[in-house]
Amino acid sequence: MIIDSIDFFYGSMPEVTLEADGSQDALLVRVATDDGSVGWGECEASPLVSIAAFVAPRSHGVCQPVSASVIGQRIDGVADIERLTRLVGRNSMDLLQAAHTWSGIEIALWDLLGRRLGEPVWRLLGYERSHPKVPYASMLMGDSPQLTLERAREARARGFLAVKVGWGGYGTGTAREDADHVAAAREGVGPDGVLLVDAGQIWVDDLEAAAARLAALQAADALWLEEPFVPYAFGAHARLAELAGSVGIAGGEGAHNPHMAINLIELGGVRFIQVDAARIGGIGPARQVADVALASGVTYVNHTFTSHLALSASLQPFAGLATHRICEYPAEPKQLALDLSRQHIALDANGEIAAPDAPGLGIDVDPAGLSPYLRDVEILVDGRTLFASPSLPGEPARARLAATTARPATTTAPASGPATPSVLDPSRALQ
Amino acid sequence: MIIDSIDFFYGSMPEVTLEADGSQDALLVRVATDDGSVGWGECEASPLVSIAAFVAPRSHGVCQPVSASVIGQRIDGVADIERLTRLVGRNSMDLLQAAHTWSGIEIALWDLLGRRLGEPVWRLLGYERSHPKVPYASMLMGDSPQLTLERAREARARGFLAVKVGWGGYGTGTAREDADHVAAAREGVGPDGVLLVDAGQIWVDDLEAAAARLAALQAADALWLEEPFVPYAFGAHARLAELAGSVGIAGGEGAHNPHMAINLIELGGVRFIQVDAARIGGIGPARQVADVALASGVTYVNHTFTSHLALSASLQPFAGLATHRICEYPAEPKQLALDLSRQHIALDANGEIAAPDAPGLGIDVDPAGLSPYLRDVEILVDGRTLFASPSLPGEPARARLAATTARPATTTAPASGPATPSVLDPSRALQ
Repeated sequence: MIIDSIDFFYGSMPEVTLEADGSQDALLVRVATDDGSVGWGECEASPLVSIAAFVAPRSHGVCQPVSASVIGQRIDGVADIERLTRLVGRNSMDLLQAAHTWSGIEIALWDLLGRRLGEPVWRLLGYERSHPKVPYASMLMGDSPQLTLERAREARARGFLAVKVGWGGYGTGTAREDADHVAAAREGVGPDGVLLVDAGQIWVDDLEAAAARLAALQAADALWLEEPFVPYAFGAHARLAELAGSVGIAGGEGAHNPHMAINLIELGGVRFIQVDAARIGGIGPARQVADVALASGVTYVNHTFTSHLALSASLQPFAGLATHRICEYPAEPKQLALDLSRQHIALDANGEIAAPDAPGLGIDVDPAGLSPYLRDVEILVDGRTLFASPSLPGEPARARLAATTARPATTTAPASGPATPSVLDPSRALQ
Repeated sequence: MIIDSIDFFYGSMPEVTLEADGSQDALLVRVATDDGSVGWGECEASPLVSIAAFVAPRSHGVCQPVSASVIGQRIDGVADIERLTRLVGRNSMDLLQAAHTWSGIEIALWDLLGRRLGEPVWRLLGYERSHPKVPYASMLMGDSPQLTLERAREARARGFLAVKVGWGGYGTGTAREDADHVAAAREGVGPDGVLLVDAGQIWVDDLEAAAARLAALQAADALWLEEPFVPYAFGAHARLAELAGSVGIAGGEGAHNPHMAINLIELGGVRFIQVDAARIGGIGPARQVADVALASGVTYVNHTFTSHLALSASLQPFAGLATHRICEYPAEPKQLALDLSRQHIALDANGEIAAPDAPGLGIDVDPAGLSPYLRDVEILVDGRTLFASPSLPGEPARARLAATTARPATTTAPASGPATPSVLDPSRALQ
């Protein structure tokens, strides 16, 4: 089968704040092939910039837009996804944003293959079953220790056995203030809960600043300290890991290729490697990291702060690893992240979740739910439209399109897919 | 002084081919402050995507567009540039392309400060003089060994003492074929010339494939083998360096932050660290790498494949290092890369060049030269124009602008700068 259309849908909340909350917008990707197969993915990335990386005019042979390596390509099986990963890596070597754009497309290709074969993605990855995971509620730290305590307590009341707090002011004030927050979080989580703390790279590569927080984390029996540093500071990670005793160092969400995450395992001494399939290049590269983690005695954990489509995608790479139990769960997402899909991955009576036992990712995008959030993007070079937001399946052509003149579609809509194709031919842009 | 406008100018050749030739397009950046000071920089990056990273609507607190951290900021001295580097790094942590966008702005800020103070940038960096460098002609490998030989010979005839060949088919065929090219290049360079070979990451992380080329490189007395692997494969770099004997391993042009280049020095065993100021985040981060190289006994080399504005920017960080002699020189740039500036950095009678002894970067953009190459970009979200290509200084407002309605400029043009501001307020995009 041939990939003949790739459509991007950019949704956002009416107001996007400065909170470190990645669920305020979403970039969904719909891939369709010439036999009418369809798959959906999501990029955990700046939507506009990731769209631009798909349609940009080429700069030279290894600074091509992502579309150049994907549209018109065969997709008959898993090996084709791996081949396209290599092709995009080569042709877009000098286009930084390409990794984030490709991540969503790669995920959509797994979903498409799984749906076509009637198999969950985790089975295509060679796993025999989808093992239950213990989700942690991922929450922003409160403005006061009391608020942090209350948030953690609420999460426990909702059935979460594990709670992660972080960002907010953590790491920006004194070690004493941070210690108060961590102690409050432990009180909220209770003596039997699992406590995790996220520093969000706040200390860049300052070992001393991070080390000053360790005693409080040890006293509160935190399972991990997440992202003390930028993901390139391997030496600082490794030295902190030596000092941290019972507290494991976690990181990896910033990895936009598997090498970066594997380096954190092999050189950074992390005990938990956190991978966002929607950033690292998709499910295949994430699975590569899971294999290295397994061989290295490091625990693989998903990173997910957005929708349940992204959650399913990020669970797949380690769904079959029974002993890698903990997983991230966006506990307070914005409404957009819930409304965009028909199904949601809910906690069971044990407080556990699992990657769906359903074809593909097992999550259907809900056009009616997504529609109110959609943003209309137009990108033109020399008066030619390189990108115009497509209509959703079943939605009438958007009014704006009436005002767009001479919009030659160079890809055809698939037989069963009524979406307006958004992909024009970037190679024509400069002719 | 306050930064009150940042304008992007995207130029390209009429036809952009699949050659690995980065001089086929250019993204120039003009920064102006409220006292009428102006500086110019260049991003070595996909122009459209880098513009999008400047104007994109924010996604969340650490996925903000680059503009959010720069417009309206004070810029009184070098410390302010460093402060803005940290601010962009924090606020755009999750926006991959931000590093490439910021690089051009950072360079323009150095140029602006240098011109305001009447000092070359290298003097603002603390260097006492701009030492002469030995430029190597950077050329693509020919389709046949004979063509490679002729290109190398021509470069010597033009006065270059050193020649680099690479890309083309190098590394994609057999080791035998590659050996023929390398031997031919040596013949063309002559026994007294310096020969360099560039593999362009072709072996990704395949140590064996790279090692199979070493004997021919040693026999041809190549000074270095450049970019055998992706810049994250430290282990492969280090093992190849051990095997390579007299041939040094070189790399670093892909670094989009100083950590990446420093890791190649400390973990990858490179003997030459190649930094593109227009990718790594600008002149300040490049200088950080130069300091580490100096302390580590590694030779710092610029990476430049585009204009003489970019060449000057990439020479500044090591202009004062007398013993770091070799430098890259785009020997066969496309006409755009020459036409866009008034001055050019030419070889002297000794076949040497130096960073200009003139205020700022010492290179003036030539509006008349650049104008024929300019591409017109428009980016709209929900019908609001986030970006529209500005007019060049002295150029009449572009005809297209007449058709754009309701375009509220939220930054004001500087008193002495007649350019049409291209920066609208991205934070308003979703309101």
